[in-house]
Amino acid sequence: MTLANTPQPVSAQTMVALVLEGTHPRIDTQFPKPIPGPGEALLQVRQAGVCNTDLELVKGYMGFSGILGHEFVATVTECSDAPHWVGKRVCADINAACELAVSPDECHTCGHPHHCPNRTVIGIDRHHGAFAQYLVAPIRNLYEVPDSVSDQAAVFTEPLAAAFEIAEQISIKRSETIVVLGDGKLGILIAQVMRLHCDTVWLLGRHAGKLAMVKHQAIQGPKVQTALSSVWENDPSKMKKVDIVIEATGSASGLVQAMNLVKPRGTIVLKSTVAISNEVNLAPIVIDEITLLGSRCGPFDKALTALAAKQVAVEPLIVSAYPLVQAEEALAQANTKGTLKILLNEFS
Amino acid sequence: MTLANTPQPVSAQTMVALVLEGTHPRIDTQFPKPIPGPGEALLQVRQAGVCNTDLELVKGYMGFSGILGHEFVATVTECSDAPHWVGKRVCADINAACELAVSPDECHTCGHPHHCPNRTVIGIDRHHGAFAQYLVAPIRNLYEVPDSVSDQAAVFTEPLAAAFEIAEQISIKRSETIVVLGDGKLGILIAQVMRLHCDTVWLLGRHAGKLAMVKHQAIQGPKVQTALSSVWENDPSKMKKVDIVIEATGSASGLVQAMNLVKPRGTIVLKSTVAISNEVNLAPIVIDEITLLGSRCGPFDKALTALAAKQVAVEPLIVSAYPLVQAEEALAQANTKGTLKILLNEFS
Repeated sequence: MTLANTPQPVSAQTMVALVLEGTHPRIDTQFPKPIPGPGEALLQVRQAGVCNTDLELVKGYMGFSGILGHEFVATVTECSDAPHWVGKRVCADINAACELAVSPDECHTCGHPHHCPNRTVIGIDRHHGAFAQYLVAPIRNLYEVPDSVSDQAAVFTEPLAAAFEIAEQISIKRSETIVVLGDGKLGILIAQVMRLHCDTVWLLGRHAGKLAMVKHQAIQGPKVQTALSSVWENDPSKMKKVDIVIEATGSASGLVQAMNLVKPRGTIVLKSTVAISNEVNLAPIVIDEITLLGSRCGPFDKALTALAAKQVAVEPLIVSAYPLVQAEEALAQANTKGTLKILLNEFS
Repeated sequence: MTLANTPQPVSAQTMVALVLEGTHPRIDTQFPKPIPGPGEALLQVRQAGVCNTDLELVKGYMGFSGILGHEFVATVTECSDAPHWVGKRVCADINAACELAVSPDECHTCGHPHHCPNRTVIGIDRHHGAFAQYLVAPIRNLYEVPDSVSDQAAVFTEPLAAAFEIAEQISIKRSETIVVLGDGKLGILIAQVMRLHCDTVWLLGRHAGKLAMVKHQAIQGPKVQTALSSVWENDPSKMKKVDIVIEATGSASGLVQAMNLVKPRGTIVLKSTVAISNEVNLAPIVIDEITLLGSRCGPFDKALTALAAKQVAVEPLIVSAYPLVQAEEALAQANTKGTLKILLNEFS
């Protein structure tokens, strides 16, 4: 277990890392290289992705201090407890359940490693992340990346797994209508996963440019249609008709729009951790007997299988890539309104 | 269909009624007695109950104008389309679906009469209610009251049906723990219905007097335990342990407490239409993958069956009863903090 706020073993060697202290992310070229503990592997990072959660962490979310980064693909360089992993290209589930857990499918405390009350979370909560040359992860969290999946695609495993989580939580009928609110990175991934389960998916967004990209990259197709949110907001015929609305805008107004669109006894899936700062009337939830379902991390195996089968297009989401030493600039670009995925792709 | 805001047939006869205009409820002794239309029955009210929703309507909720009252038992006095109802003692489902509906179980528009987009609601939305000597209701909404159920008990059919709705919406295992937040009328009914489905029910409230009544009336027992909310709020061992939390406090703080108590992947049932007026952080819904389920009106048949079988004690909730002509005083007492059920019991 590697806890950022408790003493941990480090070697005399150092490495380059993007370290967050308070609300200040900065490159440290002399950060101690970690040493894996029992049940852990040492991973050499190949590529990493910047997530909106990273930007929230910089603003103070979770009170995290340490190395950022939870979307990554890496090579196992040390793994004394399971040497067959060494040399393999892997992703890792970011939820590190407590030591009572014996496998990702079995946990003595709660049965759900993703909800272990004692868990640390790589790059998010008391566990150093992947914006560094090396990180450690529990061996039981590792997933081998198939050869057919490129590094650039494998970086998307974690957010794609979060998209697959929705289908783990609710049953979806092919004949139902799904609306995904938000044309950001997560919304575009979710729309593509939903089309595997449902024949009518609408992706609503506020950025004509992103929607044009979705169309240009043939993500839009027979099962995925796009529209500007504002068009639907001003069309009374769209109100209270949708079976499942998935809120991935990251703003409180998304929940209000979701309540307007979902049909009575329908389902709203919340994918972003929004604070409601204005008065929000939850009466429609009760009157229309709506199910509001929170959804977070998901199954890495299903995400990797979909990437290997080319069922989901992820590389069109990449806007640009930076070497690790320019991670501060990468975060700054990611923070620019309307930016899709920024990668870190040189770690040596 | 009887719409308060559209012309409706009335006889030359008049009746006593409690009429809400704007935010002013007043007794009118010359209100026109209604005439049932096609598919409707004329009901003579026997007893009626004051609900918190009535108090909200007086404050402006729903913008309702007309005769208040949606909890009642009555005798059918006219029913030309189905004369066998005449003379029977009945309750009526308050959701009057549009004319396309052919029975409570079948609706051409949406399949759910309770969610018909064109519905009126007795005593709540464009349909005169039961704080009057007479009202009309759709014949298909009528439920005969078994002889073994007293008038005083039958008045509780509507809120008791709302309590039964929860078990219609979610599957409940006997081994699960349910916490009901709120020791008001609805919370006490819900706790009693939940004990029919589950062996461990906690009723948490802020009123020692109400909780003492629950204990004195033997509603508390092997399956229903009570505690002051404040005791649980200050006990860290109670956090994130509960399978199902049912929010029936009618205040926004109830949702916050529910999020604190429910376990990861657990369920919160919202029974009251609360506006969230302060900043509420919904992040726990996402992080803990909680299901938040709105729940409103329920099955009258199951409520009447439970009353006939004496499975639920309702009469201990009655604080006092007033004649219809003193309905303004009845509302005033119902509006006094900590008051349980107020009835109207003399309509002649």
